[in-house]
Amino acid sequence: MATTRAFEVPKPGAPFTGVDRPLRAPGPGQVRIAVEACGICHSDAFVREGHWPGLAYPRVPGHEVVGRVEALGPGVTDWREGQRVGVGWHGGHCGTCEACRAGDFLQCARGLVCGFTYDGGYAEHLVAPQEALAAVPDGLDPVAAAPLLCAGVTTFNSLRNSGARAGDLVAVQGIGGLGHLGIQYARQLGFRTVAVSRGADKRALALELGAHEYLDQEAGDAAQALQALGGARVILATAPNAQLMSALVPGLGRNGTLLVIGASADPLQVAPAQLIGRRLRIQGWPSGTPKDSEETLAFSLRSGVASRNEVFPLAQANEAYARMLSGAARFRVVLKVR
Amino acid sequence: MATTRAFEVPKPGAPFTGVDRPLRAPGPGQVRIAVEACGICHSDAFVREGHWPGLAYPRVPGHEVVGRVEALGPGVTDWREGQRVGVGWHGGHCGTCEACRAGDFLQCARGLVCGFTYDGGYAEHLVAPQEALAAVPDGLDPVAAAPLLCAGVTTFNSLRNSGARAGDLVAVQGIGGLGHLGIQYARQLGFRTVAVSRGADKRALALELGAHEYLDQEAGDAAQALQALGGARVILATAPNAQLMSALVPGLGRNGTLLVIGASADPLQVAPAQLIGRRLRIQGWPSGTPKDSEETLAFSLRSGVASRNEVFPLAQANEAYARMLSGAARFRVVLKVR
Amino acid sequence: MATTRAFEVPKPGAPFTGVDRPLRAPGPGQVRIAVEACGICHSDAFVREGHWPGLAYPRVPGHEVVGRVEALGPGVTDWREGQRVGVGWHGGHCGTCEACRAGDFLQCARGLVCGFTYDGGYAEHLVAPQEALAAVPDGLDPVAAAPLLCAGVTTFNSLRNSGARAGDLVAVQGIGGLGHLGIQYARQLGFRTVAVSRGADKRALALELGAHEYLDQEAGDAAQALQALGGARVILATAPNAQLMSALVPGLGRNGTLLVIGASADPLQVAPAQLIGRRLRIQGWPSGTPKDSEETLAFSLRSGVASRNEVFPLAQANEAYARMLSGAARFRVVLKVR
Amino acid sequence: MATTRAFEVPKPGAPFTGVDRPLRAPGPGQVRIAVEACGICHSDAFVREGHWPGLAYPRVPGHEVVGRVEALGPGVTDWREGQRVGVGWHGGHCGTCEACRAGDFLQCARGLVCGFTYDGGYAEHLVAPQEALAAVPDGLDPVAAAPLLCAGVTTFNSLRNSGARAGDLVAVQGIGGLGHLGIQYARQLGFRTVAVSRGADKRALALELGAHEYLDQEAGDAAQALQALGGARVILATAPNAQLMSALVPGLGRNGTLLVIGASADPLQVAPAQLIGRRLRIQGWPSGTPKDSEETLAFSLRSGVASRNEVFPLAQANEAYARMLSGAARFRVVLKVR
Repeated sequence: MATTRAFEVPKPGAPFTGVDRPLRAPGPGQVRIAVEACGICHSDAFVREGHWPGLAYPRVPGHEVVGRVEALGPGVTDWREGQRVGVGWHGGHCGTCEACRAGDFLQCARGLVCGFTYDGGYAEHLVAPQEALAAVPDGLDPVAAAPLLCAGVTTFNSLRNSGARAGDLVAVQGIGGLGHLGIQYARQLGFRTVAVSRGADKRALALELGAHEYLDQEAGDAAQALQALGGARVILATAPNAQLMSALVPGLGRNGTLLVIGASADPLQVAPAQLIGRRLRIQGWPSGTPKDSEETLAFSLRSGVASRNEVFPLAQANEAYARMLSGAARFRVVLKVR
Repeated sequence: MATTRAFEVPKPGAPFTGVDRPLRAPGPGQVRIAVEACGICHSDAFVREGHWPGLAYPRVPGHEVVGRVEALGPGVTDWREGQRVGVGWHGGHCGTCEACRAGDFLQCARGLVCGFTYDGGYAEHLVAPQEALAAVPDGLDPVAAAPLLCAGVTTFNSLRNSGARAGDLVAVQGIGGLGHLGIQYARQLGFRTVAVSRGADKRALALELGAHEYLDQEAGDAAQALQALGGARVILATAPNAQLMSALVPGLGRNGTLLVIGASADPLQVAPAQLIGRRLRIQGWPSGTPKDSEETLAFSLRSGVASRNEVFPLAQANEAYARMLSGAARFRVVLKVR
Repeated sequence: MATTRAFEVPKPGAPFTGVDRPLRAPGPGQVRIAVEACGICHSDAFVREGHWPGLAYPRVPGHEVVGRVEALGPGVTDWREGQRVGVGWHGGHCGTCEACRAGDFLQCARGLVCGFTYDGGYAEHLVAPQEALAAVPDGLDPVAAAPLLCAGVTTFNSLRNSGARAGDLVAVQGIGGLGHLGIQYARQLGFRTVAVSRGADKRALALELGAHEYLDQEAGDAAQALQALGGARVILATAPNAQLMSALVPGLGRNGTLLVIGASADPLQVAPAQLIGRRLRIQGWPSGTPKDSEETLAFSLRSGVASRNEVFPLAQANEAYARMLSGAARFRVVLKVR
Repeated sequence: MATTRAFEVPKPGAPFTGVDRPLRAPGPGQVRIAVEACGICHSDAFVREGHWPGLAYPRVPGHEVVGRVEALGPGVTDWREGQRVGVGWHGGHCGTCEACRAGDFLQCARGLVCGFTYDGGYAEHLVAPQEALAAVPDGLDPVAAAPLLCAGVTTFNSLRNSGARAGDLVAVQGIGGLGHLGIQYARQLGFRTVAVSRGADKRALALELGAHEYLDQEAGDAAQALQALGGARVILATAPNAQLMSALVPGLGRNGTLLVIGASADPLQVAPAQLIGRRLRIQGWPSGTPKDSEETLAFSLRSGVASRNEVFPLAQANEAYARMLSGAARFRVVLKVR
């Protein structure tokens, strides 16, 4: 029987362990993908450490997967063998719950997460439901495409739905995995783009990524500096740090939005009285649907937005993960599988 | 020289004091109004206690003013003597700052507040800039109209701009001066209306005001109860209590909005991680422009929404204010001046 | 073998003919419904006369169907036997085309229409795909609910998505099957509601349905009269008459919308120059999804909006259809099947 | 007494005639501008030919004016002498009518048009109301800035308010004065940009301006070609040709918008039935406010969008106008005054 290599978390807290598993035939409505690349996301730590409700082990993580369709399960008619596809965080939906009936698949009551609810992309093969697939355009390398399926779609999709219009002042807080993409997208969406981070050494990078301005949070009050630029219409808060986010709220212009994508569990330090007079808004945003991912990929290819990646072979999944965790990676870490 | 009676705050913390002042001619672009009624708003305490930046004393409070135009200053062409008008919180704007040039008069950089920046409606006469005036329709009694110029426009305007559509589940937290109007408006805007407050004794009142459902926050978890009803599209938070507001956030349905109009200076207890997955939003809302006030008055008259008022003569301004402060008034307190 | 009675169109142009057909078991993802009532819609003429691409005969028309779930096909888990449900114009979607992946089921590339693509509700039984089902609330009579699944959802859904806010001036042109519902919904959504039709005799009816004003198009220029009222934010054009619609465009206020639901194949008589200066919009609107239908039913029950129906037994399908065609029915015609 | 040179239309149909006029002091709320450049717009033909209601003669045309503030009238506090400013089509508003009170200055009931209601920019000096002024950023040459005050703001402002999101397919019909800017803006707003015009020779130009695709309306059905690309979310129709516009409607994707800025007085050839099923919209758009103009200028400077201009001295106003009328100019014609 044919087998396929995967790196699984045998139990919460244990390192990724290489195993050979039987190659599985896709079930009804499913597709088997020969994985080419898989991004390592900070959320993989939930699987590694067991901090997510309902996880079963062993579990193969990985929700920034790119590969080629290898086998179609019964009833799959809209995908074909050999097609390059990706699977991101959104790993499937039921189609019949209230959210799905409203077309809001991201909030499916029975939603699946790739690499959480089923085995993900730290592996040579992956079986995923068809509704989780995004077509990957020719011209995008698998390693280049992988991080766009989570970090990319989250920043692109939140920004294009933020209500900011071209020419508006948009600040991107943080220049990490999310932020270095957020800055590029903000620029390509026509925003007057301000990067906000800590340290004078980030300026050159920020400008290189497309920022029109850079604000060093260590050198002074960034909120005040934003006001001096006119006040931000949107601040995209990528660092999962509620205190940092809260400190930027006074930098919003009238009717501005703090757009929250960095998942901190600490409370924001924002009072109702701060929000009322200037009609401010705090808006949470998850990621996107597979269709959003396709639009992210197409836009990135067309506009030249690219994730900067450090690449490891699948066999070095533990090293790659450690590199991501260290915070030193510039900026995403990707497993090259084939 | 003709004089006019007014109740002023002589200095922060001092009681309102009746004085006779010379009757003033309106300046360019101003209008003098013979006051008929003036609502007492909790914000008047800012003037009374001196808790507002830049206040000068003595100062006559009152920003829920209804009366008749008595004299037109030079250059005023769109108002006529004898016309019934009102002045609310928004007491004027410059027309030339960035916010005004964007048509966002509420956020004028030089915005005036009636009863704060200039003398307000605890008086027989008031001089206000023409852009602060709202026409009051025939058929609305001055006492009935007064509270609609602040409490009314705030609740009506926030709800109609909240993004909720007819049929959506909208909760109104609090059944006080703001809330008892919010419930009525929510019902008349076609929302499935849920009143949320404390105590079983409020149920009958809530239903009488038009609520389809009543949730007693003392009898159980109101957020859970909202979820059982399907999750709120909007929660209008009228009580200036950040803790109560925060406790309701889990009662929002997907893509729901906590609509904040109760100005608490305490921080909300909401973490980014709560907002992201379900794409929630916290939205602050001020009041409205004079045009918004006109639309509020017209809507209220047409749909039968009415403030319930306790009425005092101008001479009893101190008693009326104390009654408002006590929290026992059902629901707004209004000075009948003429 | 059990049989069930149905009225089919044997070939284009032929009268409805009663036939006994074998009772069919629902296939995967399908549901069989014991029909209680079915509205007769003007669009049924497409089936009767053969004016729709791709129709196969014989065909049972009817897309305003209410009944009870009688049997579940394989894989149906979110509906239960005995549940009261309805099927409207939107008769199913594929879930995998581009429109479906965007959550825009109404525009599914493989969309089904009940009574067109498969046999509809002029029958004792109906088999429909599960995604076409709308739950019908207890408290709504089947005959009352039926027309709300097409005429109701079309008017309610177009109005609530029109951008008009409570208090805005909304005109409803036509007081027929669509219009008599449109007027009621407009009023219940909080709009200042103007009914527009021909003949002084319609005034009493219009006001009874909830209109605040009535404009007789025979008595004068209705567009001018709308301007005198302030200009319409939205004009809901229900009569399928492009000339009548076009004549109302000058009655729109600034930024107004002509909301087109009456399907005329004649060109509108509107020039670009008319639209530019006042930033006007012409917006087409189809009907709604099953979820929209559920929201329509719930709203109607809660607010008292009701279709006025003439009722016939199934055996008189031909008489009922003729009555609808005559234009004399007040206002919808419904077959009571059980 | 000091005089200033201007080119006026002495009476409808007569050529522009150079005259020396007394230099005028600005009145209250007005500003005198030393003109540096003025674009020639096709709308100037309305003045030249007398085809506009209420025109008085002689009249100096020109509503794409750039210059420096030279003198401030009484009460002007937010502009300073020496500041570079521009005046576009929107030449002033009253501030007190219903539209102005709603912040919708473009639709002011007493709105002024520069070069129509008062003398415009075919002149060495211009007196304009302060609310008509847009600040022109350093770094923009006056000749470069002038056409952006009408052609620029119209295309930029309509596109950024069209509802299209970055990545959406946006077609720009026409590559003339408006279109050559529309293509550049569409690209810089992040749209997948398709230029549509007549003739294979336009392809290179279209791509050079930033279009991703070019469709030759002479080489085949452009609407069909748009559908092959996925269907347009927005078609910006710049050519004042109702027939051409109408022919593109079938090229709209689901929920698409025909965005009409080319003022044709001929009726569109679009039937309601075309708009309903796919939920299409036809949207008219005027130009923009002075604040919109400022945002247009800032955006253009930042993103490199530039009008391509043919330049004439003021003394050759007649030759310049003829060149514009000929349709041969590439693409705007500008008078360089200083």
